[in-house]
Amino acid sequence: MIQEIIVTTTNADGSTHIAPMGIREESGLTVIAPFKPSATLENIQCNKTAVINRIDDVRIFAGCLTGRKDWPLAPTEQINDNRLEAAISHVELELERFEEDELRPRFYCRPIHEAIHKPFKGFNRAQAAVLEAAILVSRLDMLPDEKIDQEIDYLTIAIEKTAGKNEKIAWDWLMEKIKQFREQEQKDKTA
Amino acid sequence: MIQEIIVTTTNADGSTHIAPMGIREESGLTVIAPFKPSATLENIQCNKTAVINRIDDVRIFAGCLTGRKDWPLAPTEQINDNRLEAAISHVELELERFEEDELRPRFYCRPIHEAIHKPFKGFNRAQAAVLEAAILVSRLDMLPDEKIDQEIDYLTIAIEKTAGKNEKIAWDWLMEKIKQFREQEQKDKTA
Repeated sequence: MIQEIIVTTTNADGSTHIAPMGIREESGLTVIAPFKPSATLENIQCNKTAVINRIDDVRIFAGCLTGRKDWPLAPTEQINDNRLEAAISHVELELERFEEDELRPRFYCRPIHEAIHKPFKGFNRAQAAVLEAAILVSRLDMLPDEKIDQEIDYLTIAIEKTAGKNEKIAWDWLMEKIKQFREQEQKDKTA
Repeated sequence: MIQEIIVTTTNADGSTHIAPMGIREESGLTVIAPFKPSATLENIQCNKTAVINRIDDVRIFAGCLTGRKDWPLAPTEQINDNRLEAAISHVELELERFEEDELRPRFYCRPIHEAIHKPFKGFNRAQAAVLEAAILVSRLDMLPDEKIDQEIDYLTIAIEKTAGKNEKIAWDWLMEKIKQFREQEQKDKTA
């Protein structure tokens, strides 16, 4: 089972790196498999800690894919990192085991502290649609335009029927990104 | 913004009625709009209370649509109903205002107690896919087969990539229901 969350880690300069990621659990450990190269990979290798942020503010997922990475932070309790202030709940992790891989090395981490900050408000179809659109946006250079258009058309239904303010903002950021990508693609072709 | 949750209410015989529903908030009140006729409608009219259960066990959504309504309950704290034991968080509501409607009357309810029981574990694409499939299953007699097949094909990707045990069980219940519906449809045609 894959959970879509935001991993926060600490950069060498003390700032916080924010990365959306799919994680899974295995025998009580949390498995984080960042791509190579990536700041998350470097930071966990260096600090041996990471934070799992579970959020329902989907602007943060869409923001990370559209150059908006400046989200309010709060200190963690038992490790030396920061969590997202928006986290509904968060887990503080310590690295237990590292498995090398050419594409996606795996960190097996032990949860040492978990805290709940806000109640989960229930499923929202628009939030799920934003997440799916964010995944499409992360693969714009790998997917044919028609497939993207088809899936966006389908996802638009849930946005129109069930979105709140944050979901609409996140959706607009992603749609703008697709538009920009295509305009650039067009320029590159005619250049 | 619509949140997909389970409403629990108390039947005249003291048993608990479980119904998946999309709710919204308006000026601090929770708006529940059950279809006419329905047990949820009757129960809130009679008792003036209801419970909002936010769950991540999508078997309960799929179960409600496939005749599996027997889920463990726990008592509420400030009203005389039951909540789902599986609820990540729940809200106890008291009826404040009723608006009649021919199709979907609206209850405007005041939250009088909210409790968190478990941490939200993050988004899971398979859970969202089960929810979308459950909505399709609730409309089998209104949607063309090709549209259902097309959407199920799309949703299957998230199930295969990200589902845990509960999501797979829920998905199988829904697929079985579609199969049964079509077999019955076929029988009716040839009868």
